[in-house]
Amino acid sequence: NMNAYTERIEALRELMDSEGWDAVILGGSDPHSSETPATRWRQVKWLTGFTGEAGDVVITADHAGLWTDTRYFIQANRQLEGTGVELHKMRIPGAVGIPQWLAEKAESEGRRLIVAVDGLCQSLDAISELETAGDGSLKIISIADLMDSLWLDRPQVPQTPIYTIDYETSGVVDREEKLNFLRKWMLKKGADYALVSSLDEIAWILNVRASDIAYDPYVISYLIVSQESAKWYVTKDEEIDIDTRDSFDELRGDGVEIYAYSEIFEGLEEIPEESSVFYDGASTSYEIYKRLSDRQLTLISERSPIQLQKALKTAKEIELLRETYIEDGLALSRFLKWVEDGVKSGDGPTEWEASEKLTALRAEIPGYRGDSFENISAYGEGAALPHYVTTKENSPKLQARGLYLIDSGGHYLTGTTDTTRTIPLGPCSSMEKIDYTLVLRSMIALSMAVFPKGTAGCQLDAVGREILWKEQRNFGHGTGHGIGYWLGVHEGPQDIRQNFNPQPLLPGMLTSNEPGLYREGQHGIRHENVILVVEDGKNEFGEWLKFDTLTCCPIDTGAVVLSMMSKEELDWLNNYNSWVYDTLSPRMSEEESAWLAEKCKPLISPWGGR
Amino acid sequence: NMNAYTERIEALRELMDSEGWDAVILGGSDPHSSETPATRWRQVKWLTGFTGEAGDVVITADHAGLWTDTRYFIQANRQLEGTGVELHKMRIPGAVGIPQWLAEKAESEGRRLIVAVDGLCQSLDAISELETAGDGSLKIISIADLMDSLWLDRPQVPQTPIYTIDYETSGVVDREEKLNFLRKWMLKKGADYALVSSLDEIAWILNVRASDIAYDPYVISYLIVSQESAKWYVTKDEEIDIDTRDSFDELRGDGVEIYAYSEIFEGLEEIPEESSVFYDGASTSYEIYKRLSDRQLTLISERSPIQLQKALKTAKEIELLRETYIEDGLALSRFLKWVEDGVKSGDGPTEWEASEKLTALRAEIPGYRGDSFENISAYGEGAALPHYVTTKENSPKLQARGLYLIDSGGHYLTGTTDTTRTIPLGPCSSMEKIDYTLVLRSMIALSMAVFPKGTAGCQLDAVGREILWKEQRNFGHGTGHGIGYWLGVHEGPQDIRQNFNPQPLLPGMLTSNEPGLYREGQHGIRHENVILVVEDGKNEFGEWLKFDTLTCCPIDTGAVVLSMMSKEELDWLNNYNSWVYDTLSPRMSEEESAWLAEKCKPLISPWGGR
Repeated sequence: NMNAYTERIEALRELMDSEGWDAVILGGSDPHSSETPATRWRQVKWLTGFTGEAGDVVITADHAGLWTDTRYFIQANRQLEGTGVELHKMRIPGAVGIPQWLAEKAESEGRRLIVAVDGLCQSLDAISELETAGDGSLKIISIADLMDSLWLDRPQVPQTPIYTIDYETSGVVDREEKLNFLRKWMLKKGADYALVSSLDEIAWILNVRASDIAYDPYVISYLIVSQESAKWYVTKDEEIDIDTRDSFDELRGDGVEIYAYSEIFEGLEEIPEESSVFYDGASTSYEIYKRLSDRQLTLISERSPIQLQKALKTAKEIELLRETYIEDGLALSRFLKWVEDGVKSGDGPTEWEASEKLTALRAEIPGYRGDSFENISAYGEGAALPHYVTTKENSPKLQARGLYLIDSGGHYLTGTTDTTRTIPLGPCSSMEKIDYTLVLRSMIALSMAVFPKGTAGCQLDAVGREILWKEQRNFGHGTGHGIGYWLGVHEGPQDIRQNFNPQPLLPGMLTSNEPGLYREGQHGIRHENVILVVEDGKNEFGEWLKFDTLTCCPIDTGAVVLSMMSKEELDWLNNYNSWVYDTLSPRMSEEESAWLAEKCKPLISPWGGR
Repeated sequence: NMNAYTERIEALRELMDSEGWDAVILGGSDPHSSETPATRWRQVKWLTGFTGEAGDVVITADHAGLWTDTRYFIQANRQLEGTGVELHKMRIPGAVGIPQWLAEKAESEGRRLIVAVDGLCQSLDAISELETAGDGSLKIISIADLMDSLWLDRPQVPQTPIYTIDYETSGVVDREEKLNFLRKWMLKKGADYALVSSLDEIAWILNVRASDIAYDPYVISYLIVSQESAKWYVTKDEEIDIDTRDSFDELRGDGVEIYAYSEIFEGLEEIPEESSVFYDGASTSYEIYKRLSDRQLTLISERSPIQLQKALKTAKEIELLRETYIEDGLALSRFLKWVEDGVKSGDGPTEWEASEKLTALRAEIPGYRGDSFENISAYGEGAALPHYVTTKENSPKLQARGLYLIDSGGHYLTGTTDTTRTIPLGPCSSMEKIDYTLVLRSMIALSMAVFPKGTAGCQLDAVGREILWKEQRNFGHGTGHGIGYWLGVHEGPQDIRQNFNPQPLLPGMLTSNEPGLYREGQHGIRHENVILVVEDGKNEFGEWLKFDTLTCCPIDTGAVVLSMMSKEELDWLNNYNSWVYDTLSPRMSEEESAWLAEKCKPLISPWGGR
């Protein structure tokens, strides 16, 4: 009963046997702790076939396990079929993570386990957690590019053209000013050097973009900053690529020295003895950390200050974002009309065709630089997988019944978007309507929230979620994630979810607002707007914040159960759709505008609401 | 401009000067990290006159500061007047705690500060925090009973009679079983010895009670447990006190060895070298820790498992609690009627007289063992201080207008209670009514909450608080605290507040539900019930929990603004009051029952709610 995956796992076990390893951990990330690594580092996919964004694998002589979270349970069960890999569920009560699982294995076998990892693809924090859990019972061996001997056609480090952005093109702060921000922080912390591994931090601080990772406009590289220098370690192809050469020229003009990506270890060795070096354990690989800690250096481990600074959008960025979200919402509205027209005509598109159409509509927007993630175009039961991706072949055709979910976003020179709309394509079951209404009420509750300065997202998450909880329904993903500015569609340090992240929500931060509800084999619903944290005055009780919705695209009222809506919720919904109409219709054709007017017609509750 | 406090502070400064100390920290606690220590350890009160439950003082040559939280700002401002002690506000955005304040002082002066503390009255965690913040710039000197040379009439360690409880009297699990629970946990953790410093943990595990601390039924003592022994270090007066002698006999019969309180240091020295010792840094004093760490021992620092076990009330305890809360609610209801009758007669009681009356009514309940904290009997603007305590002299008289707040509780052999009712005594301003209704809606929202297993209190707090936030109002204390079973009225490990306490709410836990609203110089409102976490079934989305309200006392509807209530909220309120009537009226006289019927009359919204 062998397939490609079982064969690969067996080959790995042979390697383990010959090396004397008891376990191998393969992380789902790259040397920069990226959320979605380039193909070269998709070791979990290569070994097991699992394609989810989050998942780590542990192989032992008698067990192969994939650890992933609620978002991917259904997908993992499907993709792991026949591989012999067992799903270990995370983010559920009583979940046993990899560190604890290995520690328990060591304890039950009454011996020390030798655990091999690719130290390049494991963050220091992950290995520290392993060592803490093991408490001496796990011996960690780090081998850079451990899979190379098995994965013979493993892809190279990608090198796509590098572009620069500036205030003129994108409204961003100059890189000198950004580097100075970091240098000031370093002075305060007493750090002579700062090692930046995180790709979105490097893209932000150097104002550089590329396409090394699908959907994320990052340049695979490291950055070492001191008061006098900024050394950028990046795969060089300036010989053959004019854009990259121009970018390098510009950066060199700003005092950035450029080295080859592979020279990073030499770069670390050049840091003088007795220096103090800042790094962020969340994004620094274990391999890099080992090399730093082997030397006579004072190491300063903290969360990178770039994360927070990057999340606080400037007034100029916010101004440009508002326009960007309107243009993006216009394309998405046109798409929704196109879907409806197609379905009404009796020959609706497939999920795949719809996805292609949406990308084409976005591509017409000036400043468009690609989709911010793979479109989730999901009809009916497909939408029950929160991260469903349709395939070109056998893509289901949209029919004039039930719900269609489209989660998508674009990268533009002036921002990144992320919107989900779920729309009824015809008659819906009463469970679909009730679920649709509950999720919408949940999104509205968070949209209307007011909260004192200092409130963290995890302290606010229940405001929307309680509406679902009260009906004993829930969703297994966060309610909100930060969003970059022509950067990753997911960014920290803030989020809105059931965790214990103490980062307060601050004015200028963007987050998604995306509750959902998923019934396997039936339907999936998600409503998602992007909201901006804004000030809301102060009084004797404190300083107040609220959200301002940036996303500008009609919310379909066709599946709303009116009797479930309170007057406040209904007012919010009607005001939102009315704003969408007023904002988009002047940019629309007459036919489009008429359609939008119908979509944005206020819902009137004859009995004054719930 | 000298008074008793400025004189004491000057005397301390002279001592500091002669000893070469740059700063002295006086904590508000005792060697057991008790929330409300006995008089002997109320050093902050002795030095500054501040009587709040939470407050730490730092004295330097040129500064005297009191660090306390939002609950005590108004009180501290009043009590510190004329002492030269400055208030440092905690639990507000941008708050600078003592560790950071001292570290910044050291940095600004460019030198290392010598900081003297009474290591007996500082938890290890507090000193660790200090050392971490100081990062080498603060040299901590620990001097046991540092204040002795200044505080000449300092009280002795209290020794009140010790009683035991058992399944017969209180429905509690036997002490053997409780000790075995701890011993099993120690085996799992590899701890040969467990040092228990926390007074509520000792009272719980040994089933002993006394009155060493006002309102908290604790015995001031330490406990050292091994697989073979349980050694209790407690001030001995068995010679003169028959109850204590009987209790000691019973405990000795169960294998508990009894030593003098002052012998604890010898007890620590008797722990054999190379043993492993468990302690909880949150309740262990720095002095004890130093003595442990100076020896050849393996120290195991963890949160004590007793905390969680104690918080999970048994089925028998819950059964007895329900009856206890009914009897307690009956006394409180009779009190509310008595207040109303008095005010209506034109000669209302003073706050003090009302407080005395309530205690007298509670004292009639079989099994009553005292009040669980000092009654907060507060009329009008007095209620704006969340922890207001009225004085016998000059106590304000209740008038037939505005709001009266009574926050009180009793200790009984079968549980501890804690209830707040705010009642209108006559006409109220519209702001009083709106605030009253918002706070009530906030309490109802949490009462009705449903949440998945695994949810922590901090993840639920916003469910009630958002109702106030949306009107830009807030309160500066937690929404809920755990409650002991004939133990402290505050207990961990769970709470419901804006923190990051990851402890999930679990079936069998009690917590208060007590939102409030305070307007200095105007009025204060708080509604408080005690709620029990109970199971609410499971489905495809997970396992569900909800709250069951134990407190049984009418909620006054006289100040409710009907148009602000939703139908759901109104239904909850009417159902609650109807349950109170059905439960209490059979135990009441005819006159009382008629009064209660009037109080519990349902509110009918002609327009069907908000």
